[in-house]
Amino acid sequence: MSPILLFAPIRLAVWHRQSLPLAMGHESRYHLAPMGLIVQKFGGTSVANAQKIHRAARRAIQAKRDGKHVVMVVSAMGRTTDKLVSLAREVASNPPKRELDMLLTTGEQVSIALMAMAIHDAGGQAISLTGAQLGLVTDSVHTKAKIHKIERRRLESELEAGNIVIVAGFQGIDAAGEITTLGRGASDTTATALAAVLEAEMCEIYTDVDGVYTADPRVVPNARKIDTISYDEMLEMASAGAGVMHGRAIEFAMRFDVPVHVRSALTDAPGTMIMRETEGMEALAIRGVTLREDLATMVLLGVPNKTGMAGRIFEEIAKHHVIVDDIVQNMYDDGKFANIGFVISAEDSPIVKELTDRLVREQGLQGVETQDQVSKISAIGVGMRSHSGVAASMFDILGSAGVNIHSISTSEIVISCVVAREDGHKALAAIHDAFHLSDK
Amino acid sequence: MSPILLFAPIRLAVWHRQSLPLAMGHESRYHLAPMGLIVQKFGGTSVANAQKIHRAARRAIQAKRDGKHVVMVVSAMGRTTDKLVSLAREVASNPPKRELDMLLTTGEQVSIALMAMAIHDAGGQAISLTGAQLGLVTDSVHTKAKIHKIERRRLESELEAGNIVIVAGFQGIDAAGEITTLGRGASDTTATALAAVLEAEMCEIYTDVDGVYTADPRVVPNARKIDTISYDEMLEMASAGAGVMHGRAIEFAMRFDVPVHVRSALTDAPGTMIMRETEGMEALAIRGVTLREDLATMVLLGVPNKTGMAGRIFEEIAKHHVIVDDIVQNMYDDGKFANIGFVISAEDSPIVKELTDRLVREQGLQGVETQDQVSKISAIGVGMRSHSGVAASMFDILGSAGVNIHSISTSEIVISCVVAREDGHKALAAIHDAFHLSDK
Repeated sequence: MSPILLFAPIRLAVWHRQSLPLAMGHESRYHLAPMGLIVQKFGGTSVANAQKIHRAARRAIQAKRDGKHVVMVVSAMGRTTDKLVSLAREVASNPPKRELDMLLTTGEQVSIALMAMAIHDAGGQAISLTGAQLGLVTDSVHTKAKIHKIERRRLESELEAGNIVIVAGFQGIDAAGEITTLGRGASDTTATALAAVLEAEMCEIYTDVDGVYTADPRVVPNARKIDTISYDEMLEMASAGAGVMHGRAIEFAMRFDVPVHVRSALTDAPGTMIMRETEGMEALAIRGVTLREDLATMVLLGVPNKTGMAGRIFEEIAKHHVIVDDIVQNMYDDGKFANIGFVISAEDSPIVKELTDRLVREQGLQGVETQDQVSKISAIGVGMRSHSGVAASMFDILGSAGVNIHSISTSEIVISCVVAREDGHKALAAIHDAFHLSDK
Repeated sequence: MSPILLFAPIRLAVWHRQSLPLAMGHESRYHLAPMGLIVQKFGGTSVANAQKIHRAARRAIQAKRDGKHVVMVVSAMGRTTDKLVSLAREVASNPPKRELDMLLTTGEQVSIALMAMAIHDAGGQAISLTGAQLGLVTDSVHTKAKIHKIERRRLESELEAGNIVIVAGFQGIDAAGEITTLGRGASDTTATALAAVLEAEMCEIYTDVDGVYTADPRVVPNARKIDTISYDEMLEMASAGAGVMHGRAIEFAMRFDVPVHVRSALTDAPGTMIMRETEGMEALAIRGVTLREDLATMVLLGVPNKTGMAGRIFEEIAKHHVIVDDIVQNMYDDGKFANIGFVISAEDSPIVKELTDRLVREQGLQGVETQDQVSKISAIGVGMRSHSGVAASMFDILGSAGVNIHSISTSEIVISCVVAREDGHKALAAIHDAFHLSDK
């Protein structure tokens, strides 16, 4: 049984944010005629067949008729990417990442071509662009590339020519012209990055749910759609397990202050607006609660309190591209030693176990404790800044629900508790109810 | 019933050949180490699944182990291109050709990525290149582009680095970076053009048949595989309906004197070698016979014999990208008028009918006769140059078989007869037998 750790929480999400790309191709002034620009992103389920592609095409044409410049970002149709990955696994047990990117980017290329055809067929004017043609330049880390720069020239000239511009999501090229991808689900990132570069008035994310919910409705049936949420809250929701949007996508929107509208591709009902924090938002202590179930915790015991020791440990782990979250550390023995706990994906657990076992041997630590079957509950809200006692309430609620807390970490707008996996759903429902999140 | 036309046959195949691209990226000297280079092309059926991809990969690896530089050209898997075309038709009745190219080129991109993975998986070293990455530059005629230039730099550096280079067939980019395709089945053209540019010692075309046959074995069961055939003969075979290889592909090989080996992807048995004409080749009057069944004939009646009149007519037709073959013309009324006949694809018949009807009205021709249900039998052989009486024999053979000849055209190494469609198979078998083509 691991100890409850409550000291000095360090949230790596903050570090991630600081590594955001800075060069955004702002070398030229914005030449477009003074009409609003809107980015519309359609996910895989929203372009899964000809009918859905036509539905998306009509939305874009309508926006154009309403006087907007329109840039669409399109994902691969339906389960295409999964099918391509299976194909790769049929051919090779460990396919080179460069070739995986070569393979997977075809999915979006199919979608953009079909979308352009659909728009032409419906009487609109459109052109499709691959990441290479657009000039979406990334680093060279295949399958997980980061955007370095987005060229505006081609985009602007196509928009000026009256085209709806259809951009392949998820893909880019590196400086040498190699095809890269931004990681699974990263079409959202393409969309908000384009919206940022083009100073769009809105980035619309069309998806198969009708917005962001106070909790996962499959776990908490009375969860409610959230009308507006701040970038910070959404970022924490995403990193704490809300699958609606990727954190990196939200970071781009936040940095360049682009409102993001997450909404259903099937209806015209408004979804959830992700935007800059407004004063009214603090009225609620908690905006939503999330659950991540695929986690493991590790606690390094008896770490000598030498300068740079923690840094060395996490550097070693980072080398293996493992994302570490919720690092908590507490000292003992007059500050001579510390126990350092952190949370990782369960799938990364074997490799991290191997690394930490080596550290124990080489650096003279006392030992490592691992727990694979754990979940993390997070409560998120900018209102926490002004509402005191939220953490205490949470402990009470979980206690009353008979849920044992393994570890806790808090930041300005998040409180996270690690619990046994079998307690996860119960804990989520209890917190959702106790904070009245289903009330309007 | 159209008259038999026997005068002044003009074969457009010759004109096509003269329009071959001349700039072939020969700006740099050939830097590769002095080891032979081989181009291996695998058609859609030869990469239709993971097992076949691995089989192709093993062939390339073996050639590399045998001390060759290896460039592979790969088509889209199985019926992928057809499926993509259906998808386009589901979305749009008349999809823009630029977007069709954007769509269709994904098929080959999938294949090259999987082939590279298979080679890596089998312990080889490979890299895949799209048309854009390779630098295969075409004109801008989407869906039917012609190769302008092939860059050698990337190819050479990847070969020097020890890679098997896997090139996407069928695709290129124009000078503006737009994605183009070379027309259906044009992966052969990619292969022989690469072989030409790289001065390959051999271009191997792996396919689902084991070589070129004296006639289509589905029509003539005792047809025999041809061991060697000259470029000229193969070119005529292809343009006269032998589906094994595209004419444009053979033209590249001929111009740069690259031997082409058409062979089965499933066995190690030798196939058909297409090569420069040797003296022994003339021993046979006829190398093979072909049948084209999807044809129509048109005869323009009473064309005034004014300078440039015929040119104007065929220019008008060419504007609509219709390929015209076997133009025959005969004069009457002291050379004041001519009847001009030609052969086109049956599918082009409606548009050509419309054009010629207009010409009749505007230029005062006497009329147009069209026949849609016709086939063309061609007998091909460089031996015709030294064997006299081949044409006469053919007429006798068809006469004895009770086949009525609509029109005839001859060139140095080809005799073609247009017959009613229902007579096609009978005529083909009769000629094949009479010239003993099934004998070794």
